Amino acid sequence: MRVGKRSIKFESKINVISSFSIVAKKERDGNFGLSFDRCLSNDLWGEKSYEKAECKIMRETIMGAIKKAKILKEDIDYLLAGDLLNEITASSLAARCFPCGFLGLYNACSTFGEAVILGSLLLESKNASTIAACTSSHFSSAERQYRFPLELGNQRTPTSQWTVTGSGCVLLSCLDSKIIIPNPSMQKSYGVKVTEATIGRVVDMGVVDASNMGAAMAPAAADTLITHFQDMETKPTDYDLVLTGDLGKHGKKLLEILMKDEGYQLPEDTYNDCGAMYYKEKQHTIQGGSGAGCSSSAFCGYFLKKMFRGEINKILLVPTGALLSKDTPLQKESIPSIAHAVCFETFEMQ
Amino acid sequence: MRVGKRSIKFESKINVISSFSIVAKKERDGNFGLSFDRCLSNDLWGEKSYEKAECKIMRETIMGAIKKAKILKEDIDYLLAGDLLNEITASSLAARCFPCGFLGLYNACSTFGEAVILGSLLLESKNASTIAACTSSHFSSAERQYRFPLELGNQRTPTSQWTVTGSGCVLLSCLDSKIIIPNPSMQKSYGVKVTEATIGRVVDMGVVDASNMGAAMAPAAADTLITHFQDMETKPTDYDLVLTGDLGKHGKKLLEILMKDEGYQLPEDTYNDCGAMYYKEKQHTIQGGSGAGCSSSAFCGYFLKKMFRGEINKILLVPTGALLSKDTPLQKESIPSIAHAVCFETFEMQ
Repeated sequence: MRVGKRSIKFESKINVISSFSIVAKKERDGNFGLSFDRCLSNDLWGEKSYEKAECKIMRETIMGAIKKAKILKEDIDYLLAGDLLNEITASSLAARCFPCGFLGLYNACSTFGEAVILGSLLLESKNASTIAACTSSHFSSAERQYRFPLELGNQRTPTSQWTVTGSGCVLLSCLDSKIIIPNPSMQKSYGVKVTEATIGRVVDMGVVDASNMGAAMAPAAADTLITHFQDMETKPTDYDLVLTGDLGKHGKKLLEILMKDEGYQLPEDTYNDCGAMYYKEKQHTIQGGSGAGCSSSAFCGYFLKKMFRGEINKILLVPTGALLSKDTPLQKESIPSIAHAVCFETFEMQ
Repeated sequence: MRVGKRSIKFESKINVISSFSIVAKKERDGNFGLSFDRCLSNDLWGEKSYEKAECKIMRETIMGAIKKAKILKEDIDYLLAGDLLNEITASSLAARCFPCGFLGLYNACSTFGEAVILGSLLLESKNASTIAACTSSHFSSAERQYRFPLELGNQRTPTSQWTVTGSGCVLLSCLDSKIIIPNPSMQKSYGVKVTEATIGRVVDMGVVDASNMGAAMAPAAADTLITHFQDMETKPTDYDLVLTGDLGKHGKKLLEILMKDEGYQLPEDTYNDCGAMYYKEKQHTIQGGSGAGCSSSAFCGYFLKKMFRGEINKILLVPTGALLSKDTPLQKESIPSIAHAVCFETFEMQ
């Protein structure tokens, strides 16, 4: 059901029937630690290039989610996917291995939100039974594509973030969940469903520094959050957690200020950012994680598991994206940004 | 309504309320001649780079469609757009100028099909009243991004195609059409609606030559066409025109052979390809046009106008996409391809 101009309340039960995440060693050593499903042996993972490795990460992440749900490849109706490689080739090459329909998406690091929303729409409209939504990024392929060759050893700026090497995939289905309860000591078992969403619009406040994506994206996140709260008639504390994608530490602070200016407090125990949380201080990532695989791997690896255990019941996930290419800052364009909001809620299983 | 695994019959009246197309001089001199709405003065169109020019083309195409429909920017709920620039920056930068939600898409030259299908889904599910679907490409930005600098003057291979400099946009709405009848001498006036669609899957038959995209894409087009005919229980001659995107002359012949092998004749007066038709023989484009702006500008500029005049009543548009980047052939990957099918039909207006 449409609410306001850009928000949706899903009326069918859109179940998360499975999730999977794969990351590299640096990510596994970070704050989400051992919650990821699988860890690469090294950044190339047996492939001849970082780009091929990223494609393998995405392919294996989708396969992992399918196996975990105890279904077959053929049970997936559509794959909605995107990544940061030029022409989203990690997704396109991965999609070869799946016999389902493919919808390639690109909204930079907010693509995971876009994929979950459009997948939920396909389910809600009864045009699909089960869909896969997946995004990925790879530090080494992103560095050489967007910035400088790694071999150059460039110094990083104080506002820079570290592209997460990783991928996260959810399978959504309007069929009943067959998911396995992760903790046998629990009294109750929980399912997770997608309940609400707000599709973002492009906001560009004139930031031109490609190493300060937190500042570029914070206004887009504020715009989507405010639209969502207004449309749904909610406030930040109505959610157990409001979780932006990859604003990083600096961008997170900016969002808090922007929201305060608009009359919305984002309390410390209610609001956080996947990028800001991702790495430990000693890992020297400066402002934290970023990349299309940042929010998807953190959400699928860490937060969804907490939801299935009933430890968090309502998360508003807001993946954020900076819509630049390597060329646009060189051609003196500022950085258009976007954020999509998706609400996940637990329910007690029979 | 879902039909088969990947096909949709739209039950609401999803009206084409406006369309607009902008091309460059070479395209205006081609076979679709003066049917385009606007023509660039030169390839840079007053901008400092081809990339900026492509962004301007898309922005002006969307604005043109909005003005033609006599509505306001604010009446558009969502823009669904994609292009061939890395990170679809023509679309992202153009989207800054519109206050609507933005869904960035990438399925290469089949993106126009993807945009119309997902836009129609948003309308069918009552989550939008009016959407814009737009794609673009630019010969000069594509050549230097995917192939070689223009200054190098490389010789073109016998299977190569010419990237169309152009853009096409349709506005779709579940509200009643207010479109102007283009020909006052007509007895009846016609509207055009989106009635059916099939979402493609990725097909890769191992073609590795990035200059032979027709051969890479033809099997994907065959797969989507056969799925569509089977799901809808139709045959090619049930449509006035089956129109693939940019297979080019060689790819068109390959598709005819592939379809014949599967028991489907594609008669000469029923089947054609936008790319193969686009340019005149003397324009030396070898196999014809290609690019995300090829099928969208041809369809919005030439074919839709024929529909509004009642000269063609049912078109199955099948934009085709080769999902490669500059890097994937260099890394010895073959070219995954995809095609999406959308059926447009006329109806008599009251």
